[in-house]
Amino acid sequence: MIVEEMTVEESRALLARASSGRLGCSLDNQPYIVPICLAYERDHIYVFSTFGRKIEWMRLNSKVCIQTDEIITPSDWASVIADGQYQELSEPKFESDRAHARELLEKRSQWWLNALAERRQESHSDLSIEPLFFRIKVDSITGLRARTEKEGSGGG
Amino acid sequence: MIVEEMTVEESRALLARASSGRLGCSLDNQPYIVPICLAYERDHIYVFSTFGRKIEWMRLNSKVCIQTDEIITPSDWASVIADGQYQELSEPKFESDRAHARELLEKRSQWWLNALAERRQESHSDLSIEPLFFRIKVDSITGLRARTEKEGSGGG
Repeated sequence: MIVEEMTVEESRALLARASSGRLGCSLDNQPYIVPICLAYERDHIYVFSTFGRKIEWMRLNSKVCIQTDEIITPSDWASVIADGQYQELSEPKFESDRAHARELLEKRSQWWLNALAERRQESHSDLSIEPLFFRIKVDSITGLRARTEKEGSGGG
Repeated sequence: MIVEEMTVEESRALLARASSGRLGCSLDNQPYIVPICLAYERDHIYVFSTFGRKIEWMRLNSKVCIQTDEIITPSDWASVIADGQYQELSEPKFESDRAHARELLEKRSQWWLNALAERRQESHSDLSIEPLFFRIKVDSITGLRARTEKEGSGGG
């Protein structure tokens, strides 16, 4: 098995195919990870998620990362990480951006949105439910890929 | 769909079943996420992984988190997060702990270890390869679970 760095182009392509991943945020250098639905477009990753401490944390520290992967077998996988800045899509200022985020995410995550809709109807107790849309302004994207055979590697 | 907090016992049980997850670490409040193999036992999560900036970062900031989940459908899933402290299992001081970590992880992650072994034989270039074993001293474990029907919830 060979592990190689992916090019920025390859990493972007993987991120563009992804509809879910993990968001990492940090407060007082304590990291936190939460599963998310995502849609990548040009310089932004649009995120749909629910309640939780992540929003509170990202308001205090906007430095975040998003990780996603495609694992076919233990020796055939790729993992991409994007570093960036949290941008809240608050209304009314970001109304058009929120609508755009929703449109992008609906294409990829219809089942999550349906599930949330159900949950909003059914739930009267338990945790508070708020549909959260935000975006990450991407600063950098890197990726690693494993495969069993070298393909034209020039290493020595 | 209802989302509920899991009890510590339920969260521990999920973590004990898991053989893989994501590690989050942080430096200067920039978070970083990497996929890992893991084995949970009492107060520690033993981790097998490979090269990368995470080790460098965890040496500088030992506050980390580990996230793992069981996703059956979009409305039937559970996600657990453990916060804790990085502990390097350096030799010779931690030789017996390293051996214990390897034994635990071999049971769960034989294919990863095999893949690494292959990789060590085959690779002469590309990224440097070092089998890394470390553990996380767990401080807290929390979990969230979604399901479609309430089961004896007393909320109102």
